[in-house]
Amino acid sequence: MPQGDIRTNNLKKPVDVSEYLFTRLHQIGVRSVHGLPGDYNLVALDYLPKAGLTWVGSCNELNAAYAADGYARVKGISALITTFGVGELSAINGIAGAYSEMVPVVHIVGCPSTVSQRNGMLLHHTLGNGDFNVFANMSALVSCVLAKLNDPAEIAAQIDHALRECYVRSRPVYLMLPTDMAIAKVEGERLESPIDLHSPENDADKEDYVVDVVLKYLHAAKKPVVLVDACAVRHRVLDEVHAFITKTKLPVFVTPMGKSAVDETQPNYGGVYVGDASHPDVKEMVEGSDLVLSIGSLKSDFNTAGFSYRLSQLNSIDLHSTHCVVRYSEYSGVHMRGVLRKVTERVDLSQLKVNPVPATVLKPIDTSTIPADSAILQSWFWRAIGDGPFLRENDIIITETGTANFGIWDTRFPAGVTALNQVLWGSIGWALGACQGAALGAKDAGTDRRTILFEGDGSLQLTVQEISTMIRHHLNIILFTICNDGYTIERFIHGMDAEYNDIVEWKYKDLPTVFGGTDETVKKYVVKTKAELEALLADADFNNRKGLRFVELYMPREDAPTSLQLTAQASARNNAKLE
Amino acid sequence: MPQGDIRTNNLKKPVDVSEYLFTRLHQIGVRSVHGLPGDYNLVALDYLPKAGLTWVGSCNELNAAYAADGYARVKGISALITTFGVGELSAINGIAGAYSEMVPVVHIVGCPSTVSQRNGMLLHHTLGNGDFNVFANMSALVSCVLAKLNDPAEIAAQIDHALRECYVRSRPVYLMLPTDMAIAKVEGERLESPIDLHSPENDADKEDYVVDVVLKYLHAAKKPVVLVDACAVRHRVLDEVHAFITKTKLPVFVTPMGKSAVDETQPNYGGVYVGDASHPDVKEMVEGSDLVLSIGSLKSDFNTAGFSYRLSQLNSIDLHSTHCVVRYSEYSGVHMRGVLRKVTERVDLSQLKVNPVPATVLKPIDTSTIPADSAILQSWFWRAIGDGPFLRENDIIITETGTANFGIWDTRFPAGVTALNQVLWGSIGWALGACQGAALGAKDAGTDRRTILFEGDGSLQLTVQEISTMIRHHLNIILFTICNDGYTIERFIHGMDAEYNDIVEWKYKDLPTVFGGTDETVKKYVVKTKAELEALLADADFNNRKGLRFVELYMPREDAPTSLQLTAQASARNNAKLE
Repeated sequence: MPQGDIRTNNLKKPVDVSEYLFTRLHQIGVRSVHGLPGDYNLVALDYLPKAGLTWVGSCNELNAAYAADGYARVKGISALITTFGVGELSAINGIAGAYSEMVPVVHIVGCPSTVSQRNGMLLHHTLGNGDFNVFANMSALVSCVLAKLNDPAEIAAQIDHALRECYVRSRPVYLMLPTDMAIAKVEGERLESPIDLHSPENDADKEDYVVDVVLKYLHAAKKPVVLVDACAVRHRVLDEVHAFITKTKLPVFVTPMGKSAVDETQPNYGGVYVGDASHPDVKEMVEGSDLVLSIGSLKSDFNTAGFSYRLSQLNSIDLHSTHCVVRYSEYSGVHMRGVLRKVTERVDLSQLKVNPVPATVLKPIDTSTIPADSAILQSWFWRAIGDGPFLRENDIIITETGTANFGIWDTRFPAGVTALNQVLWGSIGWALGACQGAALGAKDAGTDRRTILFEGDGSLQLTVQEISTMIRHHLNIILFTICNDGYTIERFIHGMDAEYNDIVEWKYKDLPTVFGGTDETVKKYVVKTKAELEALLADADFNNRKGLRFVELYMPREDAPTSLQLTAQASARNNAKLE
Repeated sequence: MPQGDIRTNNLKKPVDVSEYLFTRLHQIGVRSVHGLPGDYNLVALDYLPKAGLTWVGSCNELNAAYAADGYARVKGISALITTFGVGELSAINGIAGAYSEMVPVVHIVGCPSTVSQRNGMLLHHTLGNGDFNVFANMSALVSCVLAKLNDPAEIAAQIDHALRECYVRSRPVYLMLPTDMAIAKVEGERLESPIDLHSPENDADKEDYVVDVVLKYLHAAKKPVVLVDACAVRHRVLDEVHAFITKTKLPVFVTPMGKSAVDETQPNYGGVYVGDASHPDVKEMVEGSDLVLSIGSLKSDFNTAGFSYRLSQLNSIDLHSTHCVVRYSEYSGVHMRGVLRKVTERVDLSQLKVNPVPATVLKPIDTSTIPADSAILQSWFWRAIGDGPFLRENDIIITETGTANFGIWDTRFPAGVTALNQVLWGSIGWALGACQGAALGAKDAGTDRRTILFEGDGSLQLTVQEISTMIRHHLNIILFTICNDGYTIERFIHGMDAEYNDIVEWKYKDLPTVFGGTDETVKKYVVKTKAELEALLADADFNNRKGLRFVELYMPREDAPTSLQLTAQASARNNAKLE
């Protein structure tokens, strides 16, 4: 390798590309790497332990991608390694979800050597047409950076750029790593300077201008409210949001995707605003407000109960990561972070009109009149888990697209809870994989946070084998499988009794045992009545033990939260709309 | 709907688009439709029963796509219905495999209404950017036709064109069906004329010219042999191949991807040619031939043991579906079908030199000296299942990418066997899904063919829930799970003892019960020794009962067919090759 030697001789501290990449991943917070082995990535995988990274070993690539998504939402960023063609395409729905929902996942694809690619060889895992760019071209559509690591002279810079963009823009990046480049040498001295992960500062004058305008309307408003949404979470301004609402004590609401973004134990927390599906008192207060300060909004159909907001832009201030809008005035290139900080600093509390949030909305419900042997109903289950002592500070709560994603709107969280959902992308099966990743992220962060998953039986079937990975890594998970006999969310949209919404009835609680669980690593429960549920939620061992707790939770087949029913009706109407 | 009414008034026999599409699918041979429900396809699914189609209801979209692939390989063509974004992307690896391996799958994607698309609505299952073409753009790269069914005036013609191309070119097509178009009206009178699925005829003069050239070399050759490969299967010339080799009695060999393409009970069948990994006698005969008539060749790495053919183009005739090559002379646009028919018709048997195939290759092996309590070894297992009475005429045999795909080269098949593998695309997990589809295809064809799957334990984990669908449809399947503790094929390529090639140990034989199987629908077996294997293979109930027979078949962890070891070494060398 004369060329290789010449290049290596110019390097001050030569390191192999795989070592460089994995060291960088470790520096930015990754500890466990998801993925599956394949012959085009095997040599790279050998470098993981040296960089302090653990191989997760998921059961398939889509599950691994979902898990990487969950890991990133808890740990800040994640990595996924797949093999060319077959592996990466199995994962692409998970990556598209991370792109749609703004989650930073580094997707590394082990691919044929640059020599094989140049020669157009008819290799396995190809379309047989000599084109080695097809799959990268697909991933380009759901990645904010795509880097083909083909030239050692460029690779270190390509990696640094991709990882920075991944984090800052909070979206997946795609790194194509050929087998020969995995062991090529690059400059290791660069590793001594960490990658700068800070967002660029706003132009100070422009920022000040926006802050003045915001304050002018804020001080003048008679009934101002704050509405926190998904992009506040994804673009990491929750500290700024918290400082702002703690100082101002303004009434604050969240959207479904913004759930858990603010401390729900604060007296100025008012609940979930979601247009027509809101509690009437919430709807009245938000839609009756003369100034809605909206932070990181994302007005998708399921996040707005079918576009049912009744807000006037004349009464709105919208803060985003790329721009801000005050009434109809747009300010491009102004990030909400700087604006929020200065608004908090400069707000004149004496000029603020602070109204109380409606007391009715979050008042604990009284379930004492419900008979002990009552079936568990959507109408009170979601309130009950939040009102009682079951949920704890810092729990991670994951809800699957389905009844859980809507029911959870009603649950009041303790402080420090992180709620994960996929309201925009809505890929059923995501939650089980994401739960594995989230729990692993919590473990890797050195915490003993519990991860609690509410999963439908239909959704569970898509990605069920990831229970095996939960057991493999001794993760601290409470998994509620809502057994209600099929795709209930689809039934409410169309086909209540249609065969295509049916599933095969599995022996759910035997799953963990089949997937390698033992009496030590897994405990299983079945609850069908109110009394059984209450007993379980109060069970100290259930609450405190480690490992997997697998709960078969029975609910009636045609029962769904009212909010789901309203949203499903809106969706069905929209699907049927003719030109 | 004034516009709709005007259009409908011009139609002689108005039918809804969904009914039109499904009627066409039924006409071309589809009986069961794979897929998952999603709100953008639900209304279309209502039309399935009326068209005589059964909904399969797989557990996830990738499994459904694999199953559609298997169904098409047995039944001739298949259909898959997914929902926009999340569903279709979960399936895309399966579709890419069908494209790579040339399998005709009609992929129908239920998507948002044309109104929603035009308005760029922020809907669930989108990237949140108002672009409704992203996923179609991905699928375009692995589909031979992509049709967006947006205008009722065009839809019937679009469907007919796509279905014809799917079948004739033997590759997937992608149909994007908006919710409003699913119920739009099109001309039903077209349904009275079936879609023409015939390949175009060759130009007669050109075909005659090629036939003359082929016959000239064939008559002159001293040691001619025939080599049948994948494209002969995929482009449906097996009847022509059979007629040719039956008439000429020329020695005939197959490649791994061509396995089962010829009747292996015929005395002129010589076994599998795969370059350096061939039996030495096969290698000598094929590489010593002065004329290899190669039919539908596909020289991928795993189909040639790492490009180890030692054949001269000067001694080769290559017949393809799009062109033919005689020595170095190329004849574009000439389909092998017409050439094969005329060569068979016009060949002068008196001029042919017909040599016998080596007798050693396929001679049954003697396992009598192997102790009864011996572990089951790759070196004799694959011969044993073919030499004994276990395999039957017309069995369908599926082998997963892994030890099974290489071991099966040694198995001599009874007449009428259909062997399925994915040697080119090589996506592990495919075989389990494909098995479900293949068995359903056999059932839908009105046969009682058995479907026999050889699946590794590592591969099984990727798609395991499809066992549930096998049980749901009472399919006639024998499933051997080769329990050898992980990804053995990867171990032989790289990382024999690496953690990343390990899997969690599951309780495999309990899987069917968890997935809904009962004593009536599933029977389970465990075999660990030669004696246990022999007893099982001779067990009349095992062989003759219906439903699922699930076998845990234990083999040593670091045991692999020699052919796999040779191919893996070639692959590792190729991956490590530096420029």
